[in-house]
Amino acid sequence: MQTKGNSVNIQDRPYHHGDLRAALIAHGMRLLAERDAEALSLREIAREAGVSATSVYRHFPDKGALLDALAAEGLRKLGAIQRAAAAAAGGGEAGFRETGRAYVRFALANPALFRLIFASQTLAPTTDWAHSEPGDLLQANAAQLAATKGGEAKVRAVSAWALVHGLAMLMLDGQIPADVDLIDQIIV
Amino acid sequence: MQTKGNSVNIQDRPYHHGDLRAALIAHGMRLLAERDAEALSLREIAREAGVSATSVYRHFPDKGALLDALAAEGLRKLGAIQRAAAAAAGGGEAGFRETGRAYVRFALANPALFRLIFASQTLAPTTDWAHSEPGDLLQANAAQLAATKGGEAKVRAVSAWALVHGLAMLMLDGQIPADVDLIDQIIV
Repeated sequence: MQTKGNSVNIQDRPYHHGDLRAALIAHGMRLLAERDAEALSLREIAREAGVSATSVYRHFPDKGALLDALAAEGLRKLGAIQRAAAAAAGGGEAGFRETGRAYVRFALANPALFRLIFASQTLAPTTDWAHSEPGDLLQANAAQLAATKGGEAKVRAVSAWALVHGLAMLMLDGQIPADVDLIDQIIV
Repeated sequence: MQTKGNSVNIQDRPYHHGDLRAALIAHGMRLLAERDAEALSLREIAREAGVSATSVYRHFPDKGALLDALAAEGLRKLGAIQRAAAAAAGGGEAGFRETGRAYVRFALANPALFRLIFASQTLAPTTDWAHSEPGDLLQANAAQLAATKGGEAKVRAVSAWALVHGLAMLMLDGQIPADVDLIDQIIV
């Protein structure tokens, strides 16, 4: 028997309630490792997950909603990596330094995801740094440093963030070499 | 007499040799004040300048060539502004600080142009920082600071650049408020 015509019936793979959302995010994250966010499509992610576009729309009404979820997941991953890096350094000032180095290495390892997190036009409200784990870490570390070394916590936080963010962006944009030794020399 | 049909003959405005290129760049810079680089078109710039698309192609074979020229012009402007800011502060360390503050203020005042300068995909080769006036200023200042205060000139240069670039990007992307007082508190 041959299929014919333009209509294709997709038999959705069965997912437990809630699992499909996680699966779609996982597929989106994997695609973001290969290409920029602009080049993602809900249709393709549906195909990857083996479900119909209609099933996807139930979780993400449009591409912006999916990108928001991917950015939030990216912030979660970045936070977990930074927390582990700080713990491995024994916390304190050395730990703060390692969260900064981890930030830049994360950007270099996940360029499309990193850019997505900071693409203001669509995402600023969701990826609210102040309410993310990386933001919590930054503020806690800056407050601790201000308490022991003086200065204003807010100024210390923004200075540290600006330094690592600028380094990440200049390296991603090819303005300075993406050199791991240079990261360690700059973030001290 | 009425004109009719789809064909429109554009009578090119007369330009002296070389002046048209400068005029096209000026029109491009003005349009960049209103919109992002992606939204520019050679056709529109031709219309603004009152010349045919053919005349434009003689100077800029494609949009990328025009964007390169706009980015280079943006770097030139940034350099002139930084040089003036440093001179007004009397040079030295205070002058270096003012070049950094001027960098962030330039980004906030010219978001599309600033993003264009650092959009790596199309522009990295043309906007080679190391051979631009802002790059010269940065390296000269960093070398002077390294000579008087120690440290490696390269590390001082990249640190200073990363700090101001990160601050500019985080403000442009709405991650932190575009607050002029904050710029002065961070860049000291």
